[in-house]
Amino acid sequence: DPSLKVFTLNSNRKLAEEIANHIGTTLGECTVSAFSDGEIQINIEESIRGCDVYIVQSTCSPVNQHIMELLIMIDACKRASARSINIVMPYYGYARQDRKARSREPITAKLVANLFETAGADRVITLDLHAPQIQGFFDMPIDHLQGVPILTDYFKKKNFDDIVVVSPDHGGVTRARKMADRLKAPIGIIDKRRPRPNVAEVMNIVGNIEGKTAILIDDIIDTAGTITLAANALVENGAKEVYACCTHPVLSGPAIERIENSKIKELVITDSIPLETEKYIDKIKQLSVAPLIGEAIIRVHEMESVSILFD
Amino acid sequence: DPSLKVFTLNSNRKLAEEIANHIGTTLGECTVSAFSDGEIQINIEESIRGCDVYIVQSTCSPVNQHIMELLIMIDACKRASARSINIVMPYYGYARQDRKARSREPITAKLVANLFETAGADRVITLDLHAPQIQGFFDMPIDHLQGVPILTDYFKKKNFDDIVVVSPDHGGVTRARKMADRLKAPIGIIDKRRPRPNVAEVMNIVGNIEGKTAILIDDIIDTAGTITLAANALVENGAKEVYACCTHPVLSGPAIERIENSKIKELVITDSIPLETEKYIDKIKQLSVAPLIGEAIIRVHEMESVSILFD
Ligand SMILES: Nc1ncnc2c1ncn2[C@@H]1O[C@H](COP(=O)(O)O)[C@@H](O)[C@H]1O
Ligand SMILES: Nc1ncnc2c1ncn2[C@@H]1O[C@H](COP(=O)(O)O)[C@@H](O)[C@H]1O
Repeated sequence: DPSLKVFTLNSNRKLAEEIANHIGTTLGECTVSAFSDGEIQINIEESIRGCDVYIVQSTCSPVNQHIMELLIMIDACKRASARSINIVMPYYGYARQDRKARSREPITAKLVANLFETAGADRVITLDLHAPQIQGFFDMPIDHLQGVPILTDYFKKKNFDDIVVVSPDHGGVTRARKMADRLKAPIGIIDKRRPRPNVAEVMNIVGNIEGKTAILIDDIIDTAGTITLAANALVENGAKEVYACCTHPVLSGPAIERIENSKIKELVITDSIPLETEKYIDKIKQLSVAPLIGEAIIRVHEMESVSILFD
Repeated sequence: DPSLKVFTLNSNRKLAEEIANHIGTTLGECTVSAFSDGEIQINIEESIRGCDVYIVQSTCSPVNQHIMELLIMIDACKRASARSINIVMPYYGYARQDRKARSREPITAKLVANLFETAGADRVITLDLHAPQIQGFFDMPIDHLQGVPILTDYFKKKNFDDIVVVSPDHGGVTRARKMADRLKAPIGIIDKRRPRPNVAEVMNIVGNIEGKTAILIDDIIDTAGTITLAANALVENGAKEVYACCTHPVLSGPAIERIENSKIKELVITDSIPLETEKYIDKIKQLSVAPLIGEAIIRVHEMESVSILFD
């Protein structure tokens, strides 16, 4: 369909190519560069008049750069008379700033959603938002894909004997439940608490993990503090072995070192955020979301339901 | 007046302090830092409920970072019940992307104006926009200050005998005219043209510069290509000496080296954009816009006319 055009910016070029491939097309011609002073320069090199444009961009690090690239591209598409402008954002940055946890904090996750609307976006396709409520921050159709099926399928193939799916905190129990259902396994929860102020946290494990293969699941792994402490606590408390997985491998600061030195046997991630070369350590297994996202784009474009992709 | 609060972000802390000083106040308490993954974290450390907030930030390099800081700060102020949110932006980045010069280009100067409005800004105080039309991109009150009086006053004190004010291109003639009027001097124009394709440009000088002290004036000096070629052409064509000045010292890439090696005797700039330490070369003289901007804030806050500042 010549009216469907997929473009990529700088965050995720390889994934975008795989998505275009899955759809049976190639990426649209577009140069994203910088002027001498660092201002972003975008040139769309082919006509998009009357086309449905899909722009692949994760707002991962450098987050402010990637947000501005996307906003400027949306502006350029709007002024070039695209019929519709669809953001394909495997990872939504600033998602953890989704409420005022203290006085006078910004709610940047909402701000950025408003910015995309102001620039001229018509729709968003995204994956595992940090909180499902963030869907409501967008005043436009949003298709919210899920990484759990992809992660689960990987572990299914391993044919483990006796599994428990563990959430590293209270916030992630629903996600762990979803994976556990698919694996027909029980769940566990790491219940961190501080007995008294100024006393180290205690990692209390809720659920039976004794002798089992534990799979820790989270949406984002950032500095990997929570997940590695959880993994070590599971092993110390009798788990046979510990796998970990997440959709969004932010992996900032000490993350790689912590994972390397932890009791985690393997960390399974997706390519919603690309890994810098130096982060490809043996323990890490990366799965692609390209088929999922490619399928979603086809279905959105043909006005078919997308929910079948994760039911 | 306790309802007037001046905050600064990261672009221009020193200038902001001088502005607060001029107003007779101190900067509001606010921390602008980064999470481990590079996302911006802003904490406003004092109540601003019912206050008129003035946020000092130039959107100079790193431009995308500085734009996002400003947007997030505006969001935080809005949610903290500020009475009004006033952007004090000595330098407006992306101003050169103010029109579609080619097909399918963005108009980023308009996009960014819309973003500030969406975030919740009520007013802008700015200085020497690249084109005065950019005022119309903001759907809110905008006070547009001028750097020419500050630059002119500096040259007046030099008591040169015989001056000509020269515009380095056609676009800057109005600005050169303003300075020339204040100095009671004639103007000149550098009329660059390419006789045939693939032949070097000829620097044709319009106006009499023979034996005179030439003052080149521009709004922005970025890579300093235009201004240094112009200066050298003036000297080669008989000018006694050449000074150059601009409001916004972007000075990216080869700028400093070019200025150092050029026939420019002195380059006079303002602090609308701070100079990195390594850029303070002997030839450069920096003037402060703090009194001008401080005065503008006082007048805006007291609902007095600002135009007196540059008439
Ligand atoms: N990029 C970030 N890195 C670390 N913490 C963040 C980040 N963005 C927001 N936060 C904080 O994380 C908390 C929300 O995280 P969560 O409880 O996992 O939803 C909020 O209190 C935020 O201040
Ligand atoms: N940051 C920048 N650095 C250099 N050139 C730019 C920049 N932003 C926009 N431009 C280009 O500069 C031209 C406008 O400059 P001017 O003719 O001086 O108004 C446009 O064609 C833009 O494509």
